[in-house]
Amino acid sequence: MSGNWGCRFKISLFGESHGPAIGVVIDGLPPGFVPDWDGVRAEMARRAPGTGPLATPRGESDEWEVLSGLFEGAATGAPLCAVIRNTDARSQDYVRGVMRPGHADMTAFIKYGGYADYRGGGHFSGRLTAPIVFAGALARQILRGDGIRIGARILSVRGVRDIDAAPEDILAASGRELPVCSAGRGELMRAEIEAARARGDSVGGIVECVALGVPPGWGEPFFRSLESAAAEMMFSIPAVKGVEFGDGFALSDKLGSESNDEMYMRGGQVAYKTNHGGGVAGGISNGQPIVLRVAVKPTPTISKRQTTVDIRSGETVEHSFTGRHDPCVAPRAVPVVEAGLALCLLDLKKERSI
Amino acid sequence: MSGNWGCRFKISLFGESHGPAIGVVIDGLPPGFVPDWDGVRAEMARRAPGTGPLATPRGESDEWEVLSGLFEGAATGAPLCAVIRNTDARSQDYVRGVMRPGHADMTAFIKYGGYADYRGGGHFSGRLTAPIVFAGALARQILRGDGIRIGARILSVRGVRDIDAAPEDILAASGRELPVCSAGRGELMRAEIEAARARGDSVGGIVECVALGVPPGWGEPFFRSLESAAAEMMFSIPAVKGVEFGDGFALSDKLGSESNDEMYMRGGQVAYKTNHGGGVAGGISNGQPIVLRVAVKPTPTISKRQTTVDIRSGETVEHSFTGRHDPCVAPRAVPVVEAGLALCLLDLKKERSI
Amino acid sequence: MSGNWGCRFKISLFGESHGPAIGVVIDGLPPGFVPDWDGVRAEMARRAPGTGPLATPRGESDEWEVLSGLFEGAATGAPLCAVIRNTDARSQDYVRGVMRPGHADMTAFIKYGGYADYRGGGHFSGRLTAPIVFAGALARQILRGDGIRIGARILSVRGVRDIDAAPEDILAASGRELPVCSAGRGELMRAEIEAARARGDSVGGIVECVALGVPPGWGEPFFRSLESAAAEMMFSIPAVKGVEFGDGFALSDKLGSESNDEMYMRGGQVAYKTNHGGGVAGGISNGQPIVLRVAVKPTPTISKRQTTVDIRSGETVEHSFTGRHDPCVAPRAVPVVEAGLALCLLDLKKERSI
Amino acid sequence: MSGNWGCRFKISLFGESHGPAIGVVIDGLPPGFVPDWDGVRAEMARRAPGTGPLATPRGESDEWEVLSGLFEGAATGAPLCAVIRNTDARSQDYVRGVMRPGHADMTAFIKYGGYADYRGGGHFSGRLTAPIVFAGALARQILRGDGIRIGARILSVRGVRDIDAAPEDILAASGRELPVCSAGRGELMRAEIEAARARGDSVGGIVECVALGVPPGWGEPFFRSLESAAAEMMFSIPAVKGVEFGDGFALSDKLGSESNDEMYMRGGQVAYKTNHGGGVAGGISNGQPIVLRVAVKPTPTISKRQTTVDIRSGETVEHSFTGRHDPCVAPRAVPVVEAGLALCLLDLKKERSI
Repeated sequence: MSGNWGCRFKISLFGESHGPAIGVVIDGLPPGFVPDWDGVRAEMARRAPGTGPLATPRGESDEWEVLSGLFEGAATGAPLCAVIRNTDARSQDYVRGVMRPGHADMTAFIKYGGYADYRGGGHFSGRLTAPIVFAGALARQILRGDGIRIGARILSVRGVRDIDAAPEDILAASGRELPVCSAGRGELMRAEIEAARARGDSVGGIVECVALGVPPGWGEPFFRSLESAAAEMMFSIPAVKGVEFGDGFALSDKLGSESNDEMYMRGGQVAYKTNHGGGVAGGISNGQPIVLRVAVKPTPTISKRQTTVDIRSGETVEHSFTGRHDPCVAPRAVPVVEAGLALCLLDLKKERSI
Repeated sequence: MSGNWGCRFKISLFGESHGPAIGVVIDGLPPGFVPDWDGVRAEMARRAPGTGPLATPRGESDEWEVLSGLFEGAATGAPLCAVIRNTDARSQDYVRGVMRPGHADMTAFIKYGGYADYRGGGHFSGRLTAPIVFAGALARQILRGDGIRIGARILSVRGVRDIDAAPEDILAASGRELPVCSAGRGELMRAEIEAARARGDSVGGIVECVALGVPPGWGEPFFRSLESAAAEMMFSIPAVKGVEFGDGFALSDKLGSESNDEMYMRGGQVAYKTNHGGGVAGGISNGQPIVLRVAVKPTPTISKRQTTVDIRSGETVEHSFTGRHDPCVAPRAVPVVEAGLALCLLDLKKERSI
Repeated sequence: MSGNWGCRFKISLFGESHGPAIGVVIDGLPPGFVPDWDGVRAEMARRAPGTGPLATPRGESDEWEVLSGLFEGAATGAPLCAVIRNTDARSQDYVRGVMRPGHADMTAFIKYGGYADYRGGGHFSGRLTAPIVFAGALARQILRGDGIRIGARILSVRGVRDIDAAPEDILAASGRELPVCSAGRGELMRAEIEAARARGDSVGGIVECVALGVPPGWGEPFFRSLESAAAEMMFSIPAVKGVEFGDGFALSDKLGSESNDEMYMRGGQVAYKTNHGGGVAGGISNGQPIVLRVAVKPTPTISKRQTTVDIRSGETVEHSFTGRHDPCVAPRAVPVVEAGLALCLLDLKKERSI
Repeated sequence: MSGNWGCRFKISLFGESHGPAIGVVIDGLPPGFVPDWDGVRAEMARRAPGTGPLATPRGESDEWEVLSGLFEGAATGAPLCAVIRNTDARSQDYVRGVMRPGHADMTAFIKYGGYADYRGGGHFSGRLTAPIVFAGALARQILRGDGIRIGARILSVRGVRDIDAAPEDILAASGRELPVCSAGRGELMRAEIEAARARGDSVGGIVECVALGVPPGWGEPFFRSLESAAAEMMFSIPAVKGVEFGDGFALSDKLGSESNDEMYMRGGQVAYKTNHGGGVAGGISNGQPIVLRVAVKPTPTISKRQTTVDIRSGETVEHSFTGRHDPCVAPRAVPVVEAGLALCLLDLKKERSI
């Protein structure tokens, strides 16, 4: 696997969906930093399974134990290890040998020679995003001290698109039970998700994430560009198949004169007329809101009958996969995308301080 | 900057557009490897400026000198350094202090405190993709020994979209002067580009890249997923604002049953009915063609009058930027995207060989 | 801190001496690898406190829990996290504010602004070598499959030097309760250690480590030389102040003709007349036994009265430090040095497989 | 190879002794930094061949060309690439196939399958220390702004040992033609070297290096300890076989009460009575002078007849190696050790600034 991430603010993920525990080692918390554990708990709850009608009924509490890196309530400067026990795993739902289409079952089988823990996707499970959210929650608490606020919303689900919204409105939406700007569109999305679930199917969606207050100058040209770092992180989140910044793919249809963000002086400061670039130019933050969008594919595990292979018998089979899965990944991906962006920004912030 | 890239097959980029030279140090060529220099030259020519009506008239020969890592024609196992001299830089075209909208001028000014070489974008210049193409050309020669072939085409330019095409057809198109599958669509693209140039403007586009013959099992779950590694590289290419794999953003509108790639046994082998995932599942190649798309924004430097700031006077100004720039980055991005993917695949291949 | 180590076979250490637990995340175990847990237990026991008259009376059981990376007894290919609970910490022995001479108390105070866990040295504690031994035990099991055997002995303690010995004899000695080749010299060492303890003092020593069966070709010239990698690891072990390979510092007194290892053909193979280089030439293993020596300083925490500062009062004080400490680090350093070398060799082996 | 080094201040080495050039890419120079090129030239001259009776007669000028990273005399913030041409290589001195004892010829042959450039040791050559000195010269100019001064001397040559000296005296000695504190001992060393040369032999030595003014708090516990980082660098220097800090190996013979550096308050500051630890405790600088010693073995290439193998014929042969080699590496190692320590300190300084 490749659970190690970060240059300055480092995380090391571990765990499998149905093993004893999942967790993360975090290296780079400033000594003396006092985590707001209620804040962490709130972030974890947003991602936790079983917390809404759109979510998987798996009832993990996602409560964690901190094994190191804290003393008298404050970060010591040494690595913080947090462990989350797996308490509600129903392994009997998983059929050994029958490869779920769209999932990592087949590639895991090839890569790990059949030794990967097949139950619940093992270490490919979306459950490993819990430690990302945990680490990201700490990262955003640190970033808040720099005046940085991060939020995301569901931009679309199977053709239903939320209204256009300013970054501040996206921030406001991010805390809602269904994080959308238009409650009406949200209901339509909910209906799509419910309809898919009723059919034993699933749907995809797009998550839009913003970061306000990022100072200009974060990120490096070329291989540590803000976009490179953030995209590397986003594509690590299971089910993500596309990432774009600012106007993204839509820029491919535009003229330069429609795409460039013109500048002017306002009160002695450089200001921008537009933000087509999503707050990044030359890989470096320009002081405008960071805007990125992440496409998540429909949950691959569905109960609808599919053709696949049974690797034990070597035969083509038809199979209906049971188990407790979200019919749409997008709602629970919202806090994960936010956490991922927080981790990237903190890592790049530290880089900049050189 | 952050010119170092790679875990197993490493490159270290250097150079500024109008400095003495640009170049790359490549670490990881197998000892005994004999580069096909004509092949490298062909790749370099595809990216070189001044080689077509759609390109910048800058006439760099992009001829290189190898300073190390070769002995009697073969790679020694030590790092290979290649240097490309800058011979046709017209620095007088660049106006110090007037920040080009959409370019890295302003963020570079902030990040480097005014010390960055402003001429031609300095080390933010698209010219630094030349060493990427150079290194990528060597990487793809090595990958060819594994039966891997890589090619890309222009999928769209300002609303004009090439026809749908199979990976093999994209490979075939990649070698054309205008790399498209439909010559007719290509002429329409060319007309869009010419029209933009005539108006002192520029256009964006999408590049679609495929890799055939990648064995299953390359890439790691999470932070070194094939998608994470490739996206990190792609977003390092100047002007790239979006990256997607397989059906990408379109998957957000789909059902799971429409998105999953069903499997069946064919001649004792696992085969796939579709390739919505772009050859990657769980971050790992599955043996199908790798398919990715890269959105490039319109060239930011345009001669059309724009509002911007003059950092010396601290005033808002109107400016028309002269200089020799491509009216569309997409054609020259084609070999860069291919090279970038080659570098990623070779790096992941080596990772896998553990 | 910097608990992350390794390029191919990676470990991530965490924990503080008197916190809830210490542990390690190991990334790079080959899928399907079945750990010999009795073997791991034996290695852990060699390092464990309270297991001999020369050791600290702290009675940690050093029993671990594996949280991930195992399924049905075999490595899955995902990171393995092992946690060792701290059960016998007597924090009242540690006086806040009074800086132990020779220890990291003062530098930790400066670096971490007073937030580091001062009890038992926090994350500077020799206790963090337990997870190194754990990971090293797994590494040497893998290396055994390559025919590699690793062992170490106490070469000297406060002027008492063990007899010269061939690598095979050092291997044999490494398993003894007091790992020396000459039982007589061992008794003299024991007497020195006991005498120091009786005086409330401590003594230093030298550990000599060998690895037999390392194939030629492991290690890289320059920054990943076998010597660089091993020395980086050895100097991470608390109390180590010197590292040498082969004849080491003694080579500084020699002629080239006395130092070079002459070669000759024997049975169609290249053989060496001597091993002054300790099995490494140009940073690369040459097929001879790897030989290195590690100097450990006397345990800094002693009950003998010393002058130091109390950082709370800002005054010079005289202090006698109580607590349970080994009067000599060398015996327990033996398995740690072996484990460290095993980790390096496995990491370099994997590097080589490219 | 492994020419990449550094976490924050990065260098990437390239080149072979008898290839077109050697050089280095340096990433991390602060934008606006104006190199003192005379200072760099002076450092390069100290290491250059052919500059004294004790040195090889090879007459490389070691003049460099900067290809990038500079604009109007100041660092741009982008990587600086410097190239040093090889102008005086006499390849006919090197006999293909006859393996020099004590050199990397044999391990290189195995590792690189016979493709390594055998002439002059290829990329194993001591000549690659020239770019280390170049990069180190820039690093120490930056460190000087922090009040850090670095110097080294020859402590011993084949049994002749320089007098004990305070760090300030070592600094003073480092600039001398023969960098020793006692001119008389220096003459004895010179006599040893000359005698060895006259016999077609060579001698080893010890270099002692100090850094004054390093603030407390640099370095990390465990794998990025100041000692780990410095030792990794030192063992990358060809011919180095031992490294120790402070009293080093001598501590193995001491009591704790003789080894601990007692502290006391002096003028409101913590002061130390001694410096047995060489300025490092727990891997972190404590504000005292950094003191380290590096053992270099005798130059392996000697004209004295030796037994070795001819890899082409597969036979044992007797051979006298000609060529222009230093009879003692120590004098020219002095500036290399200083440069290496400067690189480490700057890298750790930047790490700390997080």
